[in-house]
Amino acid sequence: MSNLTVTSQTRCFGGLLAFYRHDSEVCRSPMQFSVYLPPQAQEGRVPVIYWLSGLTCTEENFMAKAGAQRLAAAWGVMVVAPDTSPRGLGLPGEEESWDFGTGAGFYVDAIASPWHDHYRMFSYVTEELPALIAAEFPADPTRQSIMGHSMGGHGALICALRYPDRYRSVSAFAPIAAPMQCPWGEKAFTGYLGSDRTLWATYDGTELVKTTVWDQPILIDQGEADPFLSQGQLNPDQFAAACATRGLDLTLRYQPGYDHSYYFITSFMADHFAHHAAALGL
Amino acid sequence: MSNLTVTSQTRCFGGLLAFYRHDSEVCRSPMQFSVYLPPQAQEGRVPVIYWLSGLTCTEENFMAKAGAQRLAAAWGVMVVAPDTSPRGLGLPGEEESWDFGTGAGFYVDAIASPWHDHYRMFSYVTEELPALIAAEFPADPTRQSIMGHSMGGHGALICALRYPDRYRSVSAFAPIAAPMQCPWGEKAFTGYLGSDRTLWATYDGTELVKTTVWDQPILIDQGEADPFLSQGQLNPDQFAAACATRGLDLTLRYQPGYDHSYYFITSFMADHFAHHAAALGL
Repeated sequence: MSNLTVTSQTRCFGGLLAFYRHDSEVCRSPMQFSVYLPPQAQEGRVPVIYWLSGLTCTEENFMAKAGAQRLAAAWGVMVVAPDTSPRGLGLPGEEESWDFGTGAGFYVDAIASPWHDHYRMFSYVTEELPALIAAEFPADPTRQSIMGHSMGGHGALICALRYPDRYRSVSAFAPIAAPMQCPWGEKAFTGYLGSDRTLWATYDGTELVKTTVWDQPILIDQGEADPFLSQGQLNPDQFAAACATRGLDLTLRYQPGYDHSYYFITSFMADHFAHHAAALGL
Repeated sequence: MSNLTVTSQTRCFGGLLAFYRHDSEVCRSPMQFSVYLPPQAQEGRVPVIYWLSGLTCTEENFMAKAGAQRLAAAWGVMVVAPDTSPRGLGLPGEEESWDFGTGAGFYVDAIASPWHDHYRMFSYVTEELPALIAAEFPADPTRQSIMGHSMGGHGALICALRYPDRYRSVSAFAPIAAPMQCPWGEKAFTGYLGSDRTLWATYDGTELVKTTVWDQPILIDQGEADPFLSQGQLNPDQFAAACATRGLDLTLRYQPGYDHSYYFITSFMADHFAHHAAALGL
């Protein structure tokens, strides 16, 4: 079974912030995630926003740096932030680079060896984790939304575009918006998925826009001083072009002077909460 | 000269967050600090709030985790957060413990060997740094306030109580409020100041209350689930008793369920900004 354990908890903005560990069946590995319960959760089930983090992050970065708990308490929404991969499995190559393996699951279900037994982050964040949250926490599983940053922005987009019936809204900060067309994505997809680019396309936001039935507004913020933008890792314009072709309602905001850090994320977090709150009926 | 260098900078909440390094004359060492300039600083000089951090922290923790930039931008106040000690001097014992030496300057001017040449954090934060800020930044040196956390809460209290003419207001989160009466303070004062307890008293908030001419409201928040409270490291009640004897206007708030972390600090940061903003005429 899940064997859910609290590793630490504290009060924050009148609610409860806690860090958990459990045995994931999907990843066949212990996994960790954090949950912020707003004060309103003491009186009944509340909607949930999932946050997917970027490369190298754990379940802690978002809770420590994004300034989201204040907003979650104000709106009465729960926030769940999973770790970015299984850890410590001892797989060959797991710790060799910061953009592949540990801390870099890329929110795909790996089929290539040796990753396929454990690196199944897509199923983990879309299936196992929401089921666990619905079972163990005062969450309303009919009202959930998703957002993320960088690799996690990519993750949020593909979750929503593939499962429009499961998420009320989606937003992203500096997402890897066309992973098949950037070095990070090529490396990760090759390593986790092999060489079949038709499979890659099922995990690429820009490709998924072409076929999705998603029809809700999408919000993306992108810092203009983000070094990964100029390096061609993010490609929000390609995602925007695909949305324009399909007539999807995308708001892509370029923010002058902002970089790729949590200082950028926290500056616009209130707008993202407002975006999700509207869709969640708050 | 000061040789002030920007090590990194980014936009945040419409203002500018930057990290600096300079050659401190007081500490005879490179020192680092961070500055958040609110958008209002583009139009003229703004008041300054100094933040003093706790044990092990650098100039970064506060800016990354406290959620203060949003409030500084809203109020139009600059925030300056210095590092907690010189670093990398190679002094014997400098790296031996987390509560003494590197990251643990305790905001005193050391007189004991080998610390006295460099560990002069009291003069650094009250003299050299404010002079540098007034000279190099759009700061109004006639309007400055100070706050801090744990060791830095102690630092903020002693700065204000010793120099009532330099600070408009003071507040603290979980301060080491009676350092002469706790293990952390005894270790630090013995190491930096030697055995003369009359000298110790000039760096002890509870002792300084007995003689200070400070007459402005003081705000302290303390988490009830803070493990260092039950260990007797913080002693806010002794500070409160001293304030009551002198008739000083102290608001000491015990916050149920909150611990010693930045999750506690960020939860009440808005109240502390409001406290300082009133005194700064904002």
